[in-house]
Amino acid sequence: MRYIKIKTKKRCELIDISDEVEGIAENSGDKSKAILLFVPHTSAGVFINEGYDTDVGDDILRNLKKITEMAEFVHSEGNSDAHVKAALISNSLVVPIKENKLCLGRWQRVFFAEFDGPRERELIIQLLG
Amino acid sequence: MRYIKIKTKKRCELIDISDEVEGIAENSGDKSKAILLFVPHTSAGVFINEGYDTDVGDDILRNLKKITEMAEFVHSEGNSDAHVKAALISNSLVVPIKENKLCLGRWQRVFFAEFDGPRERELIIQLLG
Amino acid sequence: MRYIKIKTKKRCELIDISDEVEGIAENSGDKSKAILLFVPHTSAGVFINEGYDTDVGDDILRNLKKITEMAEFVHSEGNSDAHVKAALISNSLVVPIKENKLCLGRWQRVFFAEFDGPRERELIIQLLG
Repeated sequence: MRYIKIKTKKRCELIDISDEVEGIAENSGDKSKAILLFVPHTSAGVFINEGYDTDVGDDILRNLKKITEMAEFVHSEGNSDAHVKAALISNSLVVPIKENKLCLGRWQRVFFAEFDGPRERELIIQLLG
Repeated sequence: MRYIKIKTKKRCELIDISDEVEGIAENSGDKSKAILLFVPHTSAGVFINEGYDTDVGDDILRNLKKITEMAEFVHSEGNSDAHVKAALISNSLVVPIKENKLCLGRWQRVFFAEFDGPRERELIIQLLG
Repeated sequence: MRYIKIKTKKRCELIDISDEVEGIAENSGDKSKAILLFVPHTSAGVFINEGYDTDVGDDILRNLKKITEMAEFVHSEGNSDAHVKAALISNSLVVPIKENKLCLGRWQRVFFAEFDGPRERELIIQLLG
């Protein structure tokens, strides 16, 4: 089991962690078939999408903001929008590995999604055989 | 492969199944690296979020309700909102295991999400090496 | 590792790939406990839902369309709605296998979700032990 530490700087932001995850896959041994990325927080997530044009990630955050403005929330901490975003995006992601490399498509990057920052976050990484 | 039986009582509700899942992880043997939770239904899901304040889960359900009120549905059974919620939340979740314990964060709990109850439901659990 | 080729015909459509995935599970050997389905594209996804009445899938697409009409997008290619849909539905899915069969519920089917077609797409499949 490995861990990536992430220090976020804004309330909502996407952080490209592809290189760190790729580095762990490279040292994963011969038997690894997939890598599990798991966020142990309730107001952050992990997902894959386009990383070439950062407007795409911004548009995703923009749409998530609109979605969470629809409801009237009760939770007293005032960050229910972040919990909803985390539930929609998910905090768990499995990516296939072939010959110690992530099987990402040409435009795909792995993003840690901060929805209630800035905070010090952690990502748990488990190699699956 | 293990199964958890869940009897839901409302049309929409979140049921904290963390203790049952943790119990299975405890008896998972030395080689288990992750646990797969899979809902074999089309109007229910499984996800992780805050369990300390139940308002958070209620806010998530409240927001999902608003999302599914946006569209005009055609499906004759009248429960398309439940299918959409299940598609957004997902019916499959992988959680890392370390030394026979789920690697959950401090505030994280595992929820079975009923979107078209009350019904008798099942969760399939598979240990991954 | 296996691959399924998918030729989509519309901008948005759901393609039932259950039979192809089931065929791979059947030849997965004795040790496979789960199957990982991974879409290496940023404007498509994979998920499970009802396949008996095709109105259900159409309703899901209809609701996703409404969701992505809420935001004003910046990305110059004009397909941010497809990226948002892919982020919400996810491009990664793990399904348990028992005795070389997918553990799908009675009404469940596996769908490749095209959000920016028509295109030639690929699905990566990895068996997990």
